[in-house]
Amino acid sequence: MRRHDHQTTQADLTAGAVLAPYLQEQAAEFLRSLRLHRENSAPTDAGTHGAEEAAGALRRSSRRIGGTLHTFRAALDATWAEQLRTELAWLSGTLAREHAYATRLGRLLEALHALPGTSLPTARNGAGADSAADKERAALGVGAARAGALLERQLTLARTRAHSAALQALGSSRFHAVADAVALLASEVPLAPAAAAPAEEMLHGPADRAEQQLLTAVAALPSDRAVEPYNEAQDAPWHRTRLLLRLHRYAHEVVRGAPDPVLAEPGHALDLHRDASEAAAAAASAARTPRIAPATAYALGVLHADQRHEVEAARGVFRASWPYTAAAVTAP
Amino acid sequence: MRRHDHQTTQADLTAGAVLAPYLQEQAAEFLRSLRLHRENSAPTDAGTHGAEEAAGALRRSSRRIGGTLHTFRAALDATWAEQLRTELAWLSGTLAREHAYATRLGRLLEALHALPGTSLPTARNGAGADSAADKERAALGVGAARAGALLERQLTLARTRAHSAALQALGSSRFHAVADAVALLASEVPLAPAAAAPAEEMLHGPADRAEQQLLTAVAALPSDRAVEPYNEAQDAPWHRTRLLLRLHRYAHEVVRGAPDPVLAEPGHALDLHRDASEAAAAAASAARTPRIAPATAYALGVLHADQRHEVEAARGVFRASWPYTAAAVTAP
Repeated sequence: MRRHDHQTTQADLTAGAVLAPYLQEQAAEFLRSLRLHRENSAPTDAGTHGAEEAAGALRRSSRRIGGTLHTFRAALDATWAEQLRTELAWLSGTLAREHAYATRLGRLLEALHALPGTSLPTARNGAGADSAADKERAALGVGAARAGALLERQLTLARTRAHSAALQALGSSRFHAVADAVALLASEVPLAPAAAAPAEEMLHGPADRAEQQLLTAVAALPSDRAVEPYNEAQDAPWHRTRLLLRLHRYAHEVVRGAPDPVLAEPGHALDLHRDASEAAAAAASAARTPRIAPATAYALGVLHADQRHEVEAARGVFRASWPYTAAAVTAP
Repeated sequence: MRRHDHQTTQADLTAGAVLAPYLQEQAAEFLRSLRLHRENSAPTDAGTHGAEEAAGALRRSSRRIGGTLHTFRAALDATWAEQLRTELAWLSGTLAREHAYATRLGRLLEALHALPGTSLPTARNGAGADSAADKERAALGVGAARAGALLERQLTLARTRAHSAALQALGSSRFHAVADAVALLASEVPLAPAAAAPAEEMLHGPADRAEQQLLTAVAALPSDRAVEPYNEAQDAPWHRTRLLLRLHRYAHEVVRGAPDPVLAEPGHALDLHRDASEAAAAAASAARTPRIAPATAYALGVLHADQRHEVEAARGVFRASWPYTAAAVTAP
């Protein structure tokens, strides 16, 4: 929860007086999460629930600090801001990998369980059931079970590796330098002389630019008609839009004291879009495993297509929940 | 085109005077199509365009005569009506098979062509394209090409067999008996004594019952939430609804002189539902071909899932275009 209502008070404040408490709060949150993560981590096994939550909080504060350093760099010590931002991106990227593999596996196994023949036998629906359909269900069921085992093996291995890499990163001198920089930030923010100017003058321009970049990216998203559903390279503008929405959200938090509530649903849709896109790629990648049975490949194909349809569905939800009309978007 | 406006005149007419011209018109259409089919058919090769069109017209008039004999059987010679109806169902079913295989192959090949790597190389979208996605596209392309060849082989063979079976049927004594019965029908309709009663009394009740059966079937369709997308046995109530909509349409043509225009779009959605459902089953069946490559099986899995999504989309279109609310449906 934000303790200050920036919206009503910041007219009288300097840029530094708005920026510093936000960064200090996020830095304190970073240090709190780090402590929590250490208390919940054993070096040998994959993260416990407590460690996972702490890693999530660590990523969230890292992203907020990094985003703020980026958007409002004119009000900050430029060299320091750029360097810390790079290091925080490395850290949150490293921590995100383990989480991403776990999410991907969960999503794919859930989708596989929705395929026929993989769940507990259901009561026969007398009139509708026929033996050809049953045979099909059973065949897909066998493939789905094998595909599930294959994905579980591959993604669990990837997750374990990502977990080791994250633990190694958290024990590295590179990380200790980041943690030290954040600890310093919690007590004192290296402001630029320009931060003495009024907040409205120094912060609103960059925040508006962050919003404008988001609006421009959204306006440039290819129409669904122009897109081949299985061309995953065409997901890139959506992924970029997701990152720009995030930068806008953090800038909004700094300047207005809270995230923009109308962007919660579109933001969530872009998260689902990314998850489905990566899950589809994981299914396709598993299908390239040498010497798999055709039934396994078949189930992976079904899975791939299902996830690509979820990609398209997420785009639909994004467009439906996007609160601005095309007319509101003007060139910067 | 209907030559009479039944709606304004039939209050004064007997049931026979409404029923007989409709049946005679359909019988004449049947005989016309049959002549056209003979003129355009060579016994050796798969149907030419003219023969296909004639077969389609033959099926259409067969279905209309059969449906009318069924719905208004109380106004007709019961034994004759039941027997001719059975024979027409055999005939239109036999003729439909060739058309169905052709449609299914066309639908599946079109869906395969929409997969990446199967079309001509497109201009690279600089920023978005990446080599992992390209590799994926290429891999799916190889599988899609093989899957296309496999489906073409299997469905062309099935189509050729269905074509021979249709030609054989059209040359059989069983068919000649049907053609003779329809020729008799074109000149004289075997009415029951009850057909002397007013049309409103004898025909509106059966037509209303046909509509009521359709409404009841629609009301009983399982909600999409209750359905497992890959359980093809659950398509059955939709296929039944399609047949009931058809019977209602023909009854409406008899009683009102034209089909019910508000049911054109839901009817089309149910046709697409059936086509997609059968195409999905054909992809699944091709995937059970022994010794296929995993890449082929993978593409068939993608295809299967795509068609199942089309099944769901068709249900959505049906629900959105269905003109009656649930409240309009009452138990018969």
